[in-house]
Amino acid sequence: MVERVTVAVDANGADLGPAEVARGAALAAERGHRVVLFGPAAELGPGGEHVEVVDAPVSIAKTADPARAVRGTPAASIVQAVEAVASGRAGALVSGGSTGAALAASLFRFKRARGVHRPALAIVVPVPGSPFLLLDAGANVSVRSEHLVQFAHMGAAFMEVVMGVRRPRVALLSNGEEPSKGPEDVVAAHATLSAGAGEIDFIGNVEGFAIGKGVCDVLVADGFSGNIALKVMEGTSDVLLRSVRDAAMSSTRSKLGGLLLRPALRGLRDQIDPEAHGGAVLLGLRHLGVVPHGSFGARGFAAAIEVAARGVRDDVLGRTHERLAEAGALRRSEPSAAAATVPDES
Amino acid sequence: MVERVTVAVDANGADLGPAEVARGAALAAERGHRVVLFGPAAELGPGGEHVEVVDAPVSIAKTADPARAVRGTPAASIVQAVEAVASGRAGALVSGGSTGAALAASLFRFKRARGVHRPALAIVVPVPGSPFLLLDAGANVSVRSEHLVQFAHMGAAFMEVVMGVRRPRVALLSNGEEPSKGPEDVVAAHATLSAGAGEIDFIGNVEGFAIGKGVCDVLVADGFSGNIALKVMEGTSDVLLRSVRDAAMSSTRSKLGGLLLRPALRGLRDQIDPEAHGGAVLLGLRHLGVVPHGSFGARGFAAAIEVAARGVRDDVLGRTHERLAEAGALRRSEPSAAAATVPDES
Repeated sequence: MVERVTVAVDANGADLGPAEVARGAALAAERGHRVVLFGPAAELGPGGEHVEVVDAPVSIAKTADPARAVRGTPAASIVQAVEAVASGRAGALVSGGSTGAALAASLFRFKRARGVHRPALAIVVPVPGSPFLLLDAGANVSVRSEHLVQFAHMGAAFMEVVMGVRRPRVALLSNGEEPSKGPEDVVAAHATLSAGAGEIDFIGNVEGFAIGKGVCDVLVADGFSGNIALKVMEGTSDVLLRSVRDAAMSSTRSKLGGLLLRPALRGLRDQIDPEAHGGAVLLGLRHLGVVPHGSFGARGFAAAIEVAARGVRDDVLGRTHERLAEAGALRRSEPSAAAATVPDES
Repeated sequence: MVERVTVAVDANGADLGPAEVARGAALAAERGHRVVLFGPAAELGPGGEHVEVVDAPVSIAKTADPARAVRGTPAASIVQAVEAVASGRAGALVSGGSTGAALAASLFRFKRARGVHRPALAIVVPVPGSPFLLLDAGANVSVRSEHLVQFAHMGAAFMEVVMGVRRPRVALLSNGEEPSKGPEDVVAAHATLSAGAGEIDFIGNVEGFAIGKGVCDVLVADGFSGNIALKVMEGTSDVLLRSVRDAAMSSTRSKLGGLLLRPALRGLRDQIDPEAHGGAVLLGLRHLGVVPHGSFGARGFAAAIEVAARGVRDDVLGRTHERLAEAGALRRSEPSAAAATVPDES
């Protein structure tokens, strides 16, 4: 029997409450994983055979300065969950609370992987028929070209190892397809990635139109425009699907039409279900973190725990790192140990 | 009788060809406007009572360096159309070709308005029930905070004057709602706009989710992330509507459902029709330019000519400028005349 991977889960902060996260943990335990839940024990229940509950009622709310909140609140559930991973008690982290706090706590306690400039949030974007990995989805609001180049290699490695995509096609998100398009650092990253085409299948710049057209497997962006692209996709999908629903309710004729269409549309909804992929993965640190969307239900949290456990078992971080080394994309000089714990302007 | 406004139209480069643009010009003429069409006379036909045709068969294709192409090709239809506006023969420009060439030609020949740092491309985004203005949609890939502040005022003025929105709500596009979110220049623009809250209804940062939720009338961004947001919206809409259509074709049952739903969905499609608003408007120069989407048909070009003509008649540029002056958002020192003709790094 394969040994169970233990995943530390912060159950505070999820939109549907800690009990919903606990239900997700129970689902994950049924699928062969082991979970340590940090949150208010009164709401989490007693746990179960492979679910341990640690009473940690203190939650870090969404704040303008999550790094400070993390440093000042050692009792917070996210800090305890991160600590459990840093100390080796668990193999990976899943956070149900604010992305900012999860990022800050991870950066504070997990060191950056050797030679990595900046960690990045990577998320599998569920598009019908052609899901792709977007990174950075929000960990770094401004980046330099060498950061973008590392994101490209980290993303390619993730898609190979976790999603089983052979030789993933990697693209840069820009405002035009020509190599000259975009801010200076995007243009420079384009040049570097084009020059090193042997190690990676770099297909050049793609525009926002390309979303969902299946043109690439990995889409690289700075964390600001990547975050905007991701949320605009979500916002646009919401508005459109709601509008289709409203249109279907506008007359008896269209109501009947909507009813007949429903099974086919349900299939579509399943394909674009963000819960299926478990959320965003924090790459580039020495431990793996998975950040589900705050709106996820039990199924989404179970998927997040699954992604985290599989990531540990398949050594995603080690293999991503090998990939960076092979591509010559690791930074040369190492920062001091202190500097390695937080993202800097390097 | 009100005097007709003359609009110079570059008919080269539209996806459906110059003849389609000429049909748009004919529609606009019926609605009381006057058009000078620049393009291949053989394809444009003889013109009409209020449509003059100037034979200008040379077209500037999409190129990595449109500024150079514009300077080197005085015979190009876009250059001639811009020249017609600069010389006073026409009141405003409509370009059917590549946005890059239209921008470059306008920047080359139209001076910047006094006190304006950078011109911006502003586009009314058609969202069901809550259209809003997005700027900059791609004229400047990198901006400073004072540019964003000017975009906010220019956008508010445009929505008041052209769209009749009283006291438009203005927001900054960022990766979080907190004032501290985003790159340095977004944070600084937030601070400036908050401090001057009297002149403008600044509602703070909004995230990509907010698209289409009706939370703001003007959405301000740098031209890189603004362009990405706009194209991601288009790409996501395309993919989703195509997926709904595919779902409707997947079985006899759903085919019947799709048929019954069609009239209601057609209403939705009309609401999100980008052709209705005529395209993007170039603000901040001394002449007005409208850049329709390359895919537009005759109806879209007619709308673009209408927007351009109405903009001249309502003195959009003058009123936008007044607005900037009132808000104290004009730059103090004037650049030299030469520097004013192209965007610089100021």
